[in-house]
Amino acid sequence: MLYVVGLGLADEKDITLRGLEAIKSCSRVYLEAYTSILLVPKQQLEAFYGKEVIVADRDMVETESDAILEGAKDVDVAFLVVGDPFGATTHTDLLLRARALGIPSKVIHNASIMNAIGACGLQLYNFGQAVSLVFFTDNWKPDSFYDRVKENADLGMHTLVLLDIKVKEQSEENLARGRKIYEPPRYMSISLAVEQLLYTESQRQQNVLSATETLAIGMSRVGSSEQRIVAGTLAELNEAGDIFGPPLHSLVIVGKRLHPLEAEYAEEWAISKSEWRRIAQQVYGCQLDE
Amino acid sequence: MLYVVGLGLADEKDITLRGLEAIKSCSRVYLEAYTSILLVPKQQLEAFYGKEVIVADRDMVETESDAILEGAKDVDVAFLVVGDPFGATTHTDLLLRARALGIPSKVIHNASIMNAIGACGLQLYNFGQAVSLVFFTDNWKPDSFYDRVKENADLGMHTLVLLDIKVKEQSEENLARGRKIYEPPRYMSISLAVEQLLYTESQRQQNVLSATETLAIGMSRVGSSEQRIVAGTLAELNEAGDIFGPPLHSLVIVGKRLHPLEAEYAEEWAISKSEWRRIAQQVYGCQLDE
Repeated sequence: MLYVVGLGLADEKDITLRGLEAIKSCSRVYLEAYTSILLVPKQQLEAFYGKEVIVADRDMVETESDAILEGAKDVDVAFLVVGDPFGATTHTDLLLRARALGIPSKVIHNASIMNAIGACGLQLYNFGQAVSLVFFTDNWKPDSFYDRVKENADLGMHTLVLLDIKVKEQSEENLARGRKIYEPPRYMSISLAVEQLLYTESQRQQNVLSATETLAIGMSRVGSSEQRIVAGTLAELNEAGDIFGPPLHSLVIVGKRLHPLEAEYAEEWAISKSEWRRIAQQVYGCQLDE
Repeated sequence: MLYVVGLGLADEKDITLRGLEAIKSCSRVYLEAYTSILLVPKQQLEAFYGKEVIVADRDMVETESDAILEGAKDVDVAFLVVGDPFGATTHTDLLLRARALGIPSKVIHNASIMNAIGACGLQLYNFGQAVSLVFFTDNWKPDSFYDRVKENADLGMHTLVLLDIKVKEQSEENLARGRKIYEPPRYMSISLAVEQLLYTESQRQQNVLSATETLAIGMSRVGSSEQRIVAGTLAELNEAGDIFGPPLHSLVIVGKRLHPLEAEYAEEWAISKSEWRRIAQQVYGCQLDE
């Protein structure tokens, strides 16, 4: 049996009892560690499970999936995924491969940023499609996310922006030369995300985003005891910078259908409550009590 | 401290270790039981926690929230929510009330249908806004969901349709007479949901839904060992009826941006694989391998 187990968001205690039981039954335990990260080191998981945990990087999952699945018809193998197995990044490839090999599989769900983002006070059913924002480079600034944000904005929906992480990436030079030397991990900050959003707006100029009149909510380390939620204009969040602390960061762009109850709940996190209210009322047309 | 704890989707073992620890520390434990249900009885939770669990119906949460919160500055109180506390239905009212009373609160996340729906093979970032479908009556057939589905369909996005549940509801007569007599619980089936969708299409006629050319995926008891996933046209799902078994049921309307990998993964669940592929290719324009 292949168990694909969601670990939740923060640390080893976010696993479900069902997930922990599955791991205990397994002969081998892999941890997917290139699309998201837990906020604790692998050793902490190993101590908690009482088992070795094999870190599976992108290479291994994409090119050696048969090694991961080896013998899984007879023994149990666990593939651990931060968040939910069908969260922001899905692992249907591995499940399809197991299916092709006749290996039974079971998915054990958990919280992911896709639903835990609701902690900011915006209703999940008011979110449109989620978008991913990758690190811009000097000559690669992909902006197709802008069209998605515009689609959501035109409908008044909120947008969850998933911020890039780079784990075990090679520099262009090392990649070209086939050297398996890896860069230090990088996690996009809310400040950088806002800069990239506003840069893209300056290029595309379709009035989707405004530094001073678009409301947004930044969240860091969602689900952990060090969770931070901060609300404000894009410019305010950019300036706030260090307030969010270490990774992971997530960002929500607030849509115009903002409901008064959502605005009221999120006001608690506002950098400037008066500015938050003013924009919610004057720009978003939200009817708030005085 | 007020702990708002997500229980996940199926049974007592879907709670996280963090959530179980919180419950163990609590003096009183409430279970929100009117917006969703676990697939096991309350007694099973009580045996598992070693604590009494007080069922909180809508009345209690909406009118007696101060009783739930009583003393929570000094003792720990748990409010358990099926799925995630910020899932399809949110409990921001209770958290706002706690905030107003100066009671600290902590949210413990879990899987909800909003992210676990990814198990059907459609990518979460290709979903637009989720909609709710309520039981139609002879003279009340609210159809605002149709506009939301159309917005998603126009963008090619998938739509998660949340199906109504009626727990501890009064008949109109009993309500009018103030008699606290409650109807048996009712859970909308996928068949009924499809009938209501097609009825609404017949009234609104904006070509959003077609019995024979709109693809959909029905899921029942997501996250449990009795989970069923069935894919097909709306007509096929309607006819399949009993295949889904007991509640809870959920439904996804497939959007036109359907990706070949999504179609391939979901084909596994298709009532008729050849029909699924034909429509994916001819109606949805999906490029599938022959």
